[in-house]
Amino acid sequence: MMSEKGLEIQIESAVRPTTIVDAPRLDKRLGVTLTLATETFQCTGSFKFRAAYNVASNVPQTMIIAASSGNFGQAMAYACSLLKKSCTIVMPVTSAKVKVEAVIEYGGHVDLVDVRVKSRADRVRELSEQHPEAYIASAYDDPLVIEGNSTLGIEIGALERQLDIVVAPVGGGGLISGLIKGLKQSRKKIVEVVGAEPLLGNDAARSLRAGHIVVNESEPQTIADGARTLSLGKHNWAIIQGNLSTIVEVPEEKIIEATRLLFEFANLKVEPTGALSLAAVLTHPDLFRGRSVCCVISGGNVDPGIYASMLNGT
Amino acid sequence: MMSEKGLEIQIESAVRPTTIVDAPRLDKRLGVTLTLATETFQCTGSFKFRAAYNVASNVPQTMIIAASSGNFGQAMAYACSLLKKSCTIVMPVTSAKVKVEAVIEYGGHVDLVDVRVKSRADRVRELSEQHPEAYIASAYDDPLVIEGNSTLGIEIGALERQLDIVVAPVGGGGLISGLIKGLKQSRKKIVEVVGAEPLLGNDAARSLRAGHIVVNESEPQTIADGARTLSLGKHNWAIIQGNLSTIVEVPEEKIIEATRLLFEFANLKVEPTGALSLAAVLTHPDLFRGRSVCCVISGGNVDPGIYASMLNGT
Repeated sequence: MMSEKGLEIQIESAVRPTTIVDAPRLDKRLGVTLTLATETFQCTGSFKFRAAYNVASNVPQTMIIAASSGNFGQAMAYACSLLKKSCTIVMPVTSAKVKVEAVIEYGGHVDLVDVRVKSRADRVRELSEQHPEAYIASAYDDPLVIEGNSTLGIEIGALERQLDIVVAPVGGGGLISGLIKGLKQSRKKIVEVVGAEPLLGNDAARSLRAGHIVVNESEPQTIADGARTLSLGKHNWAIIQGNLSTIVEVPEEKIIEATRLLFEFANLKVEPTGALSLAAVLTHPDLFRGRSVCCVISGGNVDPGIYASMLNGT
Repeated sequence: MMSEKGLEIQIESAVRPTTIVDAPRLDKRLGVTLTLATETFQCTGSFKFRAAYNVASNVPQTMIIAASSGNFGQAMAYACSLLKKSCTIVMPVTSAKVKVEAVIEYGGHVDLVDVRVKSRADRVRELSEQHPEAYIASAYDDPLVIEGNSTLGIEIGALERQLDIVVAPVGGGGLISGLIKGLKQSRKKIVEVVGAEPLLGNDAARSLRAGHIVVNESEPQTIADGARTLSLGKHNWAIIQGNLSTIVEVPEEKIIEATRLLFEFANLKVEPTGALSLAAVLTHPDLFRGRSVCCVISGGNVDPGIYASMLNGT
């Protein structure tokens, strides 16, 4: 009884609550009231741990294979190490070096693939044929992923402050569909949810306009490497369609500007994908002016060299 | 009645609780169990707001004059703006540009002084003669400062985890004397408190060895600009003497290394002074190995250019 309760507590506490940061000097500059909900101090440095832990702890399989541009890989490797499972992460050879190293350090096996030759999905299919006993985890297109990420929406919904809009990055749609689900579950007044997507990979914005999933021809080479996805997932699209008011298409230079602003006025170190939500505010100020805006900072893992270049504006 | 209660709540909530960050990858590398207590998300980006707000809200004067290498200035400017008081901050011309700008933005008046010609203390004396109605606030040598900073010690003492050592930067001694006071007030088991001081300005370490306050001949030109003080304050020394087990003298290169490690493995953007506590662990690993160590990160305000150079190791 004691040990069962002890285990329950441990499982519940594996996911860390998000960190809320205020930035009054940024508010003044942008003419909005910002609430920064940063997942940079989540286990493994991004929101992905919420999903990964929920998947790894709910599937019966003891081996997990996943494709990931990095953060989901770290998260799954760490979740599996906590739960004594094994995992293999398929990553593009262009992934940030720190992300590859981290997966290995957390005990995961990294399988590097040149996405110009073979897609990550094709490589995952190959591996799954070799390991029929493994669970193939999508970084976004999985109800368990959405459920895991919904905990962030529940936390934001429970904040003791009035919010008009929640903005979050869109890649495969795992985060934003989870947020929508979680915010609906919380008992607070419904807030508007806005997506932030790199203009270079704007398949989700095009999907919203078309009314069906639109697919990029190749992985978009945006600096926001967490959003280098071919398309939204089906499970994510089912939630996004009809619940997302709009998706702001963010130019690369706004991502860099937002990263710098978060450094200077919020003391936050964020990765380019994490800066997308603030970059959306910079891109379409009219949409946000005078309102209470929660920007979800999805993660913080970025190579020091790349980050230093962004600070130097080069 | 209602409004009085409302005001009380506002005053109590002006200081933000510290942010606790874990860094398991750093733990593995250093062989310690780290608890990072970071004040980088405190109002104005450093612990100094705790002190400044306590001073500004407790003295009857409506004008405040203070000497500060920057963070205390920002903190006092913001505290005064919240409390509808005015303040003048005397700063060295060599202060980080972001710190000078911030003081002005928070509504403070900045009085720049070339410390090679005239000490900040001398300039404060001049100003106080011109404004006899003003309160002259020390950034460290004031019981109200120590009391304000003690709230951080109380918070750390209340953490639901066992700690062996708390390490914190030492400049004038305001932070560490407050920590000692706060930790004593909390009802937890007594923890050892260790100071971290730049080797280039090791007056506090020399004071501890001598048994009396030793004064630097000039302001030490360490990269840790928050520790460019001539000596410990008298009120601080009274608490430090007999309660501080040791002060680690940290070489400049360890400050830079610690700043990088906090970036890479804790997603924390910290200023050089803020990295002193982790730098102490790097400098004297034997002192900390195998123990549960709380490193206090005092602040995060640093010029982007300087920070980028530190990341690039130049």
